[in-house]
Amino acid sequence: MKKLVLAYSGGLDTSYCAVHLSKDKGFEVHAVSVNTGGFSKSEIENIERNAYKMGVKTYKNIDAVKSYYQKVIKYLIFGNVLKNNTYPLSVSAERIIQAIEIIEYAKSVDAKYIAHGSTGAGNDQVRFDMIFQTLAPEIEIITPIRDEKLSRQTEIDYLKANGIELSWEKAKYSVNKGLWGTSVGGQETLTSEKPLPETAFPSQLESQNTQTIKLTFEKGELIALNDEKNHPEKVIENLNNLASKFAIGRDIHVGDTIVGIKGRVGFEAAAALITIKAHHLLEKHTLTKWQMQHKEYLSSFYGMHLHEGQFLDPVMRNIEAFLQSSQKKVSGDVMVTLKPYHFSLDGIVSKHDLMNAKFGSYGEENKGWTADEAKGFIKIIGNQNKIYHQVNSES
Amino acid sequence: MKKLVLAYSGGLDTSYCAVHLSKDKGFEVHAVSVNTGGFSKSEIENIERNAYKMGVKTYKNIDAVKSYYQKVIKYLIFGNVLKNNTYPLSVSAERIIQAIEIIEYAKSVDAKYIAHGSTGAGNDQVRFDMIFQTLAPEIEIITPIRDEKLSRQTEIDYLKANGIELSWEKAKYSVNKGLWGTSVGGQETLTSEKPLPETAFPSQLESQNTQTIKLTFEKGELIALNDEKNHPEKVIENLNNLASKFAIGRDIHVGDTIVGIKGRVGFEAAAALITIKAHHLLEKHTLTKWQMQHKEYLSSFYGMHLHEGQFLDPVMRNIEAFLQSSQKKVSGDVMVTLKPYHFSLDGIVSKHDLMNAKFGSYGEENKGWTADEAKGFIKIIGNQNKIYHQVNSES
Amino acid sequence: MKKLVLAYSGGLDTSYCAVHLSKDKGFEVHAVSVNTGGFSKSEIENIERNAYKMGVKTYKNIDAVKSYYQKVIKYLIFGNVLKNNTYPLSVSAERIIQAIEIIEYAKSVDAKYIAHGSTGAGNDQVRFDMIFQTLAPEIEIITPIRDEKLSRQTEIDYLKANGIELSWEKAKYSVNKGLWGTSVGGQETLTSEKPLPETAFPSQLESQNTQTIKLTFEKGELIALNDEKNHPEKVIENLNNLASKFAIGRDIHVGDTIVGIKGRVGFEAAAALITIKAHHLLEKHTLTKWQMQHKEYLSSFYGMHLHEGQFLDPVMRNIEAFLQSSQKKVSGDVMVTLKPYHFSLDGIVSKHDLMNAKFGSYGEENKGWTADEAKGFIKIIGNQNKIYHQVNSES
Amino acid sequence: MKKLVLAYSGGLDTSYCAVHLSKDKGFEVHAVSVNTGGFSKSEIENIERNAYKMGVKTYKNIDAVKSYYQKVIKYLIFGNVLKNNTYPLSVSAERIIQAIEIIEYAKSVDAKYIAHGSTGAGNDQVRFDMIFQTLAPEIEIITPIRDEKLSRQTEIDYLKANGIELSWEKAKYSVNKGLWGTSVGGQETLTSEKPLPETAFPSQLESQNTQTIKLTFEKGELIALNDEKNHPEKVIENLNNLASKFAIGRDIHVGDTIVGIKGRVGFEAAAALITIKAHHLLEKHTLTKWQMQHKEYLSSFYGMHLHEGQFLDPVMRNIEAFLQSSQKKVSGDVMVTLKPYHFSLDGIVSKHDLMNAKFGSYGEENKGWTADEAKGFIKIIGNQNKIYHQVNSES
Repeated sequence: MKKLVLAYSGGLDTSYCAVHLSKDKGFEVHAVSVNTGGFSKSEIENIERNAYKMGVKTYKNIDAVKSYYQKVIKYLIFGNVLKNNTYPLSVSAERIIQAIEIIEYAKSVDAKYIAHGSTGAGNDQVRFDMIFQTLAPEIEIITPIRDEKLSRQTEIDYLKANGIELSWEKAKYSVNKGLWGTSVGGQETLTSEKPLPETAFPSQLESQNTQTIKLTFEKGELIALNDEKNHPEKVIENLNNLASKFAIGRDIHVGDTIVGIKGRVGFEAAAALITIKAHHLLEKHTLTKWQMQHKEYLSSFYGMHLHEGQFLDPVMRNIEAFLQSSQKKVSGDVMVTLKPYHFSLDGIVSKHDLMNAKFGSYGEENKGWTADEAKGFIKIIGNQNKIYHQVNSES
Repeated sequence: MKKLVLAYSGGLDTSYCAVHLSKDKGFEVHAVSVNTGGFSKSEIENIERNAYKMGVKTYKNIDAVKSYYQKVIKYLIFGNVLKNNTYPLSVSAERIIQAIEIIEYAKSVDAKYIAHGSTGAGNDQVRFDMIFQTLAPEIEIITPIRDEKLSRQTEIDYLKANGIELSWEKAKYSVNKGLWGTSVGGQETLTSEKPLPETAFPSQLESQNTQTIKLTFEKGELIALNDEKNHPEKVIENLNNLASKFAIGRDIHVGDTIVGIKGRVGFEAAAALITIKAHHLLEKHTLTKWQMQHKEYLSSFYGMHLHEGQFLDPVMRNIEAFLQSSQKKVSGDVMVTLKPYHFSLDGIVSKHDLMNAKFGSYGEENKGWTADEAKGFIKIIGNQNKIYHQVNSES
Repeated sequence: MKKLVLAYSGGLDTSYCAVHLSKDKGFEVHAVSVNTGGFSKSEIENIERNAYKMGVKTYKNIDAVKSYYQKVIKYLIFGNVLKNNTYPLSVSAERIIQAIEIIEYAKSVDAKYIAHGSTGAGNDQVRFDMIFQTLAPEIEIITPIRDEKLSRQTEIDYLKANGIELSWEKAKYSVNKGLWGTSVGGQETLTSEKPLPETAFPSQLESQNTQTIKLTFEKGELIALNDEKNHPEKVIENLNNLASKFAIGRDIHVGDTIVGIKGRVGFEAAAALITIKAHHLLEKHTLTKWQMQHKEYLSSFYGMHLHEGQFLDPVMRNIEAFLQSSQKKVSGDVMVTLKPYHFSLDGIVSKHDLMNAKFGSYGEENKGWTADEAKGFIKIIGNQNKIYHQVNSES
Repeated sequence: MKKLVLAYSGGLDTSYCAVHLSKDKGFEVHAVSVNTGGFSKSEIENIERNAYKMGVKTYKNIDAVKSYYQKVIKYLIFGNVLKNNTYPLSVSAERIIQAIEIIEYAKSVDAKYIAHGSTGAGNDQVRFDMIFQTLAPEIEIITPIRDEKLSRQTEIDYLKANGIELSWEKAKYSVNKGLWGTSVGGQETLTSEKPLPETAFPSQLESQNTQTIKLTFEKGELIALNDEKNHPEKVIENLNNLASKFAIGRDIHVGDTIVGIKGRVGFEAAAALITIKAHHLLEKHTLTKWQMQHKEYLSSFYGMHLHEGQFLDPVMRNIEAFLQSSQKKVSGDVMVTLKPYHFSLDGIVSKHDLMNAKFGSYGEENKGWTADEAKGFIKIIGNQNKIYHQVNSES
């Protein structure tokens, strides 16, 4: 029988795929969902129950939170990656790891086919197809939703006709949750003018107070929250739970999709925003000027290339090597104050802090050099421009 | 007599310079202050009165707000320049324009000497010296404060001995105000751990409400606030007055000084932050992916080079040409909501908006291409990585 | 009748298109060739004669040499653009201007269809299609060669059956000639190991001597050869005629095609190589360090984007603004010695030369500063690394 | 006694230092020379003999060829680093490794002082001082030549007066030889107009023939010449001996010195040029487009920063990590033909070659995709520019 692995989320589209591929197309369907931090245990159990109702042969949930952190999020933190200076790439990053986990699974069970439920309109099809084709060119990709372009109602009717009587009400806002943030799309994000209403966001403001927390980094990795050590992915989760009560990390991202049109999406990513900003501050204290400068250049590209599904380009490994190497001294504590809707960075403590009173405090007396040395410095550092202006004022 | 132009702010250091240079050193001192948006009319009158008490031959205030905007701020907006992703370069940018205005003045009055009150410890000496030397290598630079390293008390005593009985109390926080922001230094900014207290900031929260405003840009320039058209520098000033009531735009910058040590400085720059973020959002809608990418790279360097006093490097003119050219279509309205301590960008309206429903809404149905065309796109765009992995999996 | 403009070169493929589109498909075919410096007058006459044999309604040759220089080559020189540090983009640049000229022509004659003879394998289809679609989305693109994938023999037979008895012998090496160089493809360039034989190149060594020439640039443009002033495109042509006798400018380019595979192509581009290298030398003398650095970064991208057919991305106009601005002082003479198979740059004379003895000759005595000033400079410029190493050696 | 390590080359300047520092200044002088591939065994013996004549307490030659390759040259090859696209940084790279070896030696013998013979005019003082200060801030730097600015004749007279009767004739061309090339300075390089005469170069043309050689790289390192395996530094040396007979690798570098003036220097670096160009060609076949692009950007900076003596900036380690990571598949053979005064790259053989006929030969039939897939690709890849032009043509 034709063995097929289906990327299954339990939503209407992938449910349609599950039934259609097994019943009409004669595939032996193995449904797989990948948890990147968005599913609770009971949600997964629910997905599993439904999967079997759709007629799948097997269902498997892959817990990818750790590998998600290790393969992608870690480098997004090292690089302080915010797409267009705003968006932590919550969904983009997630799709990459999901595609990798699913295709690895398909290879491990020797599937000849792999299916996903993406439409032909967006980024996800590109990420899935490209990673599937690159890692397993021998496996054929099946995409019923993209190919058939059915309406929601047609899919619901089809499922009903096949005895599936679930409720498929469309939420007012489509929400995608994961360890690195939750995206929120809706009426407002289809055009350029309006913000999302507060109620569209999953987390709501619960605290009117402020709270100062301490984040501890070791070689660029977030290893403790308020001195409680844990695996970085756990610290991020805990930080998110804490900070979401302040409704922190909401914004709207506007940017270039892989297919060339502009897209707009709301998101809420308290932990991602706080972690990146705190990490960045620690870097400002511990890295040299040129480390900052080149990290910025490479990280911006890293985010763009990741966003566009080019994660398997070997240049990404090269950039990761740079980023990893740059984190050697990025260790220390960052104090952050959480406030309603926003947060502020209070300061850092690090034994690698280059702002070290021993070498002079900026703006105070010059301990490290004399006035004459400063003058010599200025004279020579300004040489080229002086020559340029003199040569060219005469000509 | 030895004609000398003194960059005069009315503070203790430049007052010492004024007296010392005229009385002890026999210079004919022409004091000049440059208003970059920080001085009120009565403050300038006060500076003038005091200048003459110090024995200067002439005093002149140069109103440089317009030239400040035209020569520097405009490009900082075009480039969305925030040093280390935080600081609008309020002081750095100001010093550049002050240095240029002062040296032009010195040349115009045929001075043989120019003096400034910077110490040997910081960035300002570099900016002043370099710009003076580049634009007028024939004028000698005199820097009593840097050379003599006198204590505050010694200066006060000296002035008193010379009959100057002003109050020279040191403020708890040293504040530098200008059109593009106000810097705040104090006890806390000398070390890395602590934030500035709320009271250290010049503007205090006056409004607990929210207020939505409309900013209008034309070719990248801010030309109206709530439909009131004005010169950009005036719109910025008005925006700042409005937004400061919300205590918006406060932060602490940590970065590399020109002399190689790390420095930390608080600032409050409501208009700068709001203008840059609103302008950036408009660009996300109107520029192509690669315009954004290269603008980011060049602007980051532009900010760094400006910060380091290298404003006269001709590469800065080349970058400005790029930036100017990139703004051709950056026109439209940006809606911003001001809230206590922070603000949010609501959306934009622009006839140049590339997020145009006519070409398909992202994430919705693909209007502009078929499923097969999408597959062809993905197949070929993924070619190189596929080849790379196949070639190298076999070897 | 269905009016169609055909990009016509007179070769087998476009001849097939001409006949097939007029006879079988019922189009009114208007053949157009674009001369970018590769066709002689008699060649054009020959192309015209043949075009009418193929049944075209009209034939037109567009002389695009001047616009080719003004729109593209000028910036390739300003940017010293050599793809992968080797290839002057001879063919890539040509296709861009041909596409632009042809689509403008199609619009001017109100054609509803436009046809080109590119296959589905290469870069040219991308350049033609993209520029056509961007500049005239309303005109339909027809590509018989890409769609039908006919063999050479089938095309010859078809033409014969339609009464066209021309000789269609396949040359051993396919050659494409233009103002900015001649590409040469053949058996050897299909694989990676072997160079092209000497005889494959159009120009053969005619001189065993050496000859020193003088190139004069004004604001980056080549305006004279041996003091003979002319339009830059004419100077380039003359330089090429002169230098080709030395068999200069041959090489093989290996690089990334737009479709993701690697391609290899021989070329001969004496004038392009000499002009770029001479221009670059003049820049080394007249530009500042950072002008050189950023020009390099932007120009490398400019070449890549042009190569990939993205010439109409507005970022290209922004880069051109940068490049144009950078050429303000790039004026002077460059002496070049031509030798068999290679050339050397002898030196330059420019009133903008920053290597000006007045400011000290490098490696000789320090006129411009004292030993103590040099020490002050070194002390401070080394500050950050010193602090970094001290802070981190202790921790 | 005051223990001092002297960077000693045996030339007039360092001989003066040796005598002056021991006799007049009362230092216990430990002379050290560092061989970076420029000294033969007999030359070192000669230097040693002379050193003792100058009154040094000990003399030591450090053989640094291997560490020179491992710490610097390796990365210059990985990065294809040619300063201003011309100069392999022969001298700049050498000074770095010499400074490091000497200061390490000084620390190992517990010296309190370190001396070098650089003047105050050039780059070398910056490299030496900065590396000394960074690696051993506790050791005091002594620089008699920079401080005293003596004429050649004064130094000769001084040595004679101290009983040193060596011949100190000044060579017409000052030559500095090392593994990565030989620099040549002279009358012509002090101004901009003229090339060096042939006779100024150490190697002279010995062969009028051509010779094809094979270079083998493994992960970016040159491990064999004509199938003879050896340590990379030995292969480079052998290649240089072979290629120098063809007078290959001569050129003149014009560039920015650290002190801001332009400098011009001739060089001959056959092995460096051939190795870099061959390595680069191999990369064109084995790396992806974006690996090439970002390598170029980082390598250009790496060369500049190295040239300016900033080798100890940790960003250099980060770039090295990127470069190392990029070389994983850069293995294979490169065929090069040596000819009088120049060379050509014939081709490569590599199992990692991405130009692999299996995936289609460029310009031939499209095996990997259909015409329709190509059209889909072009349609979508051109989307953004099409939208941009449509949106903006209407407005």
